[in-house]
Amino acid sequence: MEPGPPGSSRPTEPGPCLSAQRGADQAASASLQRAARAQPGRQPLAVAAVLPAGGCGERMGVPTPKQFCPILGRPLISYTLQALERVCWIKDIVVAVTGENMEVMKSIIQKYQHKRVSLVEAGVTRHRSIFSGLKALAEDQLNCKLSKPEIVIIHDAVRPFVEEDILLKVVTAAKEHGAAGAIRPLVSTVISPSTDGCLDHSLERARHRASEMPQAFLFDVIYEAYQQCSDYDLEFGTECLQLALKYCGTKAKLVEGSPDLWKVTYKRDLYAAESIIKERISQEICVVTDTEEDNKHHVKVTSEALCHASRDLQQIILDQCYNFVCVNVMTSDFQETQKLLSMLEESNLSFLYPVVVISVHFLDFKLVPPSQKMENLMLIREFAKEVKKRNIWLCGLLISYPQDEQKRQESLRQGAIVIASLIKERNSGLIGQLLIA
Amino acid sequence: MEPGPPGSSRPTEPGPCLSAQRGADQAASASLQRAARAQPGRQPLAVAAVLPAGGCGERMGVPTPKQFCPILGRPLISYTLQALERVCWIKDIVVAVTGENMEVMKSIIQKYQHKRVSLVEAGVTRHRSIFSGLKALAEDQLNCKLSKPEIVIIHDAVRPFVEEDILLKVVTAAKEHGAAGAIRPLVSTVISPSTDGCLDHSLERARHRASEMPQAFLFDVIYEAYQQCSDYDLEFGTECLQLALKYCGTKAKLVEGSPDLWKVTYKRDLYAAESIIKERISQEICVVTDTEEDNKHHVKVTSEALCHASRDLQQIILDQCYNFVCVNVMTSDFQETQKLLSMLEESNLSFLYPVVVISVHFLDFKLVPPSQKMENLMLIREFAKEVKKRNIWLCGLLISYPQDEQKRQESLRQGAIVIASLIKERNSGLIGQLLIA
Repeated sequence: MEPGPPGSSRPTEPGPCLSAQRGADQAASASLQRAARAQPGRQPLAVAAVLPAGGCGERMGVPTPKQFCPILGRPLISYTLQALERVCWIKDIVVAVTGENMEVMKSIIQKYQHKRVSLVEAGVTRHRSIFSGLKALAEDQLNCKLSKPEIVIIHDAVRPFVEEDILLKVVTAAKEHGAAGAIRPLVSTVISPSTDGCLDHSLERARHRASEMPQAFLFDVIYEAYQQCSDYDLEFGTECLQLALKYCGTKAKLVEGSPDLWKVTYKRDLYAAESIIKERISQEICVVTDTEEDNKHHVKVTSEALCHASRDLQQIILDQCYNFVCVNVMTSDFQETQKLLSMLEESNLSFLYPVVVISVHFLDFKLVPPSQKMENLMLIREFAKEVKKRNIWLCGLLISYPQDEQKRQESLRQGAIVIASLIKERNSGLIGQLLIA
Repeated sequence: MEPGPPGSSRPTEPGPCLSAQRGADQAASASLQRAARAQPGRQPLAVAAVLPAGGCGERMGVPTPKQFCPILGRPLISYTLQALERVCWIKDIVVAVTGENMEVMKSIIQKYQHKRVSLVEAGVTRHRSIFSGLKALAEDQLNCKLSKPEIVIIHDAVRPFVEEDILLKVVTAAKEHGAAGAIRPLVSTVISPSTDGCLDHSLERARHRASEMPQAFLFDVIYEAYQQCSDYDLEFGTECLQLALKYCGTKAKLVEGSPDLWKVTYKRDLYAAESIIKERISQEICVVTDTEEDNKHHVKVTSEALCHASRDLQQIILDQCYNFVCVNVMTSDFQETQKLLSMLEESNLSFLYPVVVISVHFLDFKLVPPSQKMENLMLIREFAKEVKKRNIWLCGLLISYPQDEQKRQESLRQGAIVIASLIKERNSGLIGQLLIA
C-alpha cells in the first residue's frame, strides 16, 4: 500500500535541508534520517530534475494525454510537480512538453503556483525529450535562470507519489556510482516470444527487476551519454541507465523503491491515483466549535492517526488539513460556519485540493420538528454555491439530538458515518446538500 | 481503459454457446464473432478451469488475502468466479484454497450462489496449488462430479475482469498448439541486476512481454508437465507455459490480451477494481414513472449508451440494471417507490451488486415550503433501513419545480447531477438521505 502525507509545505529556499513530513510514518522518517546521514558531508549539492511530459497517452484510451488528466480537478502533472517541489534541495525542475501543450502547461504552472519549473520543447520520443531537458540545463545561456547541476534526477510526469526518501537515495547513490535508479520486483513473469508468436523462453522472475523512476545521474555522465548515443537509441531506447552503461561505462546502482512509484498508464491507474489522493487528504479532520463562555476558537482535532488538541485553527490551516467539521451552537445558524469559511477563503488553502467543510447542527426532533429548522438551514445551498468557486465544498448535517441517551448515541454514530463518508468520497455532486443523521 | 459489461446472466447449461454480453461495445462483439468462428468445428469441447487462490496477499499490505478483500461488500474472488461462470462452455471451476480459508470460501460460494465450483486444498506455492487442482480433475474418483477435461484453463483468483473472448482465444489456441497464454506489452523496462546490486544489463522492451493470465492447455500436456517437473520448479517456478515447454516440448501460442487482464496486487489495484466495477454497473439507469391515466408501469430507460424504451420493468430487472430512479407523482408520497422496492426484493437482483434506488419527488417550493413536504419524506429513512438488509440502497431526492421555465431547467439539471453522482459513487454513507435539487 502507498503510505504518505498530504501535501506538505513548499520551501522557498532550495538547499540541503530535510523537511519533516506531516503524516509520514515513523519508519519512513527513520529511513529519511539514515539517508540524510548518507548524504556525503551534507555539502550543498546542486540538484535539478528533468521531467519528460511529451507523451500522448495512447495506452490510456482517452483523448487527453495522461499527464494532463484531472484528478479532483487538478492535472496529474501538477501533483508530480508538487511532489518534487516539496523537496527543497531540488533547485530546478525542467519539464519537456510538446509545442501544442506548451500553453496548457504554462497555465497549470500559473494556476497551481508551481515554482522552480522551466519548460522546454519535448522531442518525439522520451529519450529526445530528456535530452532537450538536459541541454537546457547544460547551456549557460544569457538571460537563462538555469545553471548546470552536479546531479540530475530524471522522473516521469505520471508518477505523482514519489517521496523525498527515494529521491534522496537515488541522488546519494548517483553521487557515489555515477548513476542510480529505483527498481521494483516484477509482478508478472517476463517472456521472450519467438518470431512466430510462440513462447521462446521465460525469464526467471527472481533474477530480474522492473526499472522504475526516479533515476539520478552525475550530470556529466548522462549528458555525455546522450551526446554520444545513436539515433537508434534516441528513437527506440527506453532506459537511461542503459545509456549511461553503454556510452560511459557507468554501472548504475539499483535502489529498491516502494510500490507507490508506479506509473499512471491505464485508465484504472487514474482511478487508483484519485483514490489514493482522496485517502491521503482525508487523514486529518479538524472539528471546530465555538462556545459562548470562550469566544476564541476552541479547536479539537481528531483522526485515527493524529491528535493536535492544543493547536490553533490558523496553524491547522497552515499545516494543510483539508477537512473541517464546524459545529454550530450559537443562535444564528451559520455564524461559526461563516467565520470558518472566511478564514479558509483568506488562507488560500483550497488551491491544491478541494477543502470539505461540514456545517453541523443539532436538534431535538421531538421538541422542534426538523422541518422548522430546515427552512433556515436550506440557506446552506447559497453559501455552498458561493464558496464552491474557491474549491471549498460545503455540506450541511443536521443531527438529531434526543433526550434519550441510547438514541442520542445512535444518531451521533450515524452522523459520524455521514461525515466520514462525505470526507472520504469527496463527492462534488453533494455540494450544498443538507444531510440528516 | 477497460471496456465491458456489467454482470451478465448465468447460463445454467454448459455447452459450446456464446452469450451476447450486454453493454459490450461493438468492437468487442465483433472480435467475439471472429473468435467464435475460429473455434474448431464448434464441437463440444470439455473445458475446465483451475484457479489457484492460496496466496496470502503479502504485497497488499493488508491482513486479508487479496482474493478475499471486499469490493462493494463482495470478496474479489467472487467477481472472478462470476466472470468464469458467465462463460457457459467452462464446465468445472476448481479453486485451490488453503485449509484455513476453506470455510470462508464455502460460505462465499453459498452466499453468492456460485455454481460449477469445486474446492481443493492449496499447496504452499502457486505451482503446487495448480497441481492440486489438476489432480482433482485427472482422478476419476467415485462420488466425484469432476471429470477429466480436454482443455484446462488456468487463471488467477485476482484477475476479475477476464472476458469471454480472451478465454475463447486461449482455449482455441491451446487446442491447436497444446498451450497458450495471454500476454501484454511491458510497462517498465526489465533489467538484470548484478550480484552487487548494480545494473548488469537491461532488456530490450520491444522483444519481451509480460506473461498474464488466462492460460490454457491440453489437459494431458500440462498434467504431464506437472508430474514430471522437479521440486525446485514447484517451489520457485512462476510460469506454467515454461513447464509445458520444458517437460513436454510444447511451445505455447502467445495471445495479445487487453489491459483489463491485470492482476490485483497492491492496495491501489483494489481501488482501481472498485472504480471499474462501479463504472460498469452505473452504465444503465432505469427511470420508472407511474402516471394516473396509465396504471401499468410506464418505463423509460435512458443512459448515454443504451436506450430500451419499450422494455418492460420486469425484463429490465432480469437484464440486471442496477440503478433505478423512481418518480413519484401519485398522492401517497411513496406509493411508486414502494411498489418498485417490492419488485426488486422479490427479484433477488441485489445479491451480487448493491442496487441504487432514488425516490424522486417534485415540489414547487413557492407554493409549498419544502419543509412541509419534507416531514413526510423523512419516512424514507425507515424504508431505506429496511431494504438495506437486502443490499438495496435507497435515497430520496426532492426536486424544486417552479413555474419559471428557466429555474425549472436549472433545478432539473441540478437533480440530474445529484442522481448521477449517487449512482456513480455508490456511497453507502448516504443511504436514507433526502437530497434537494
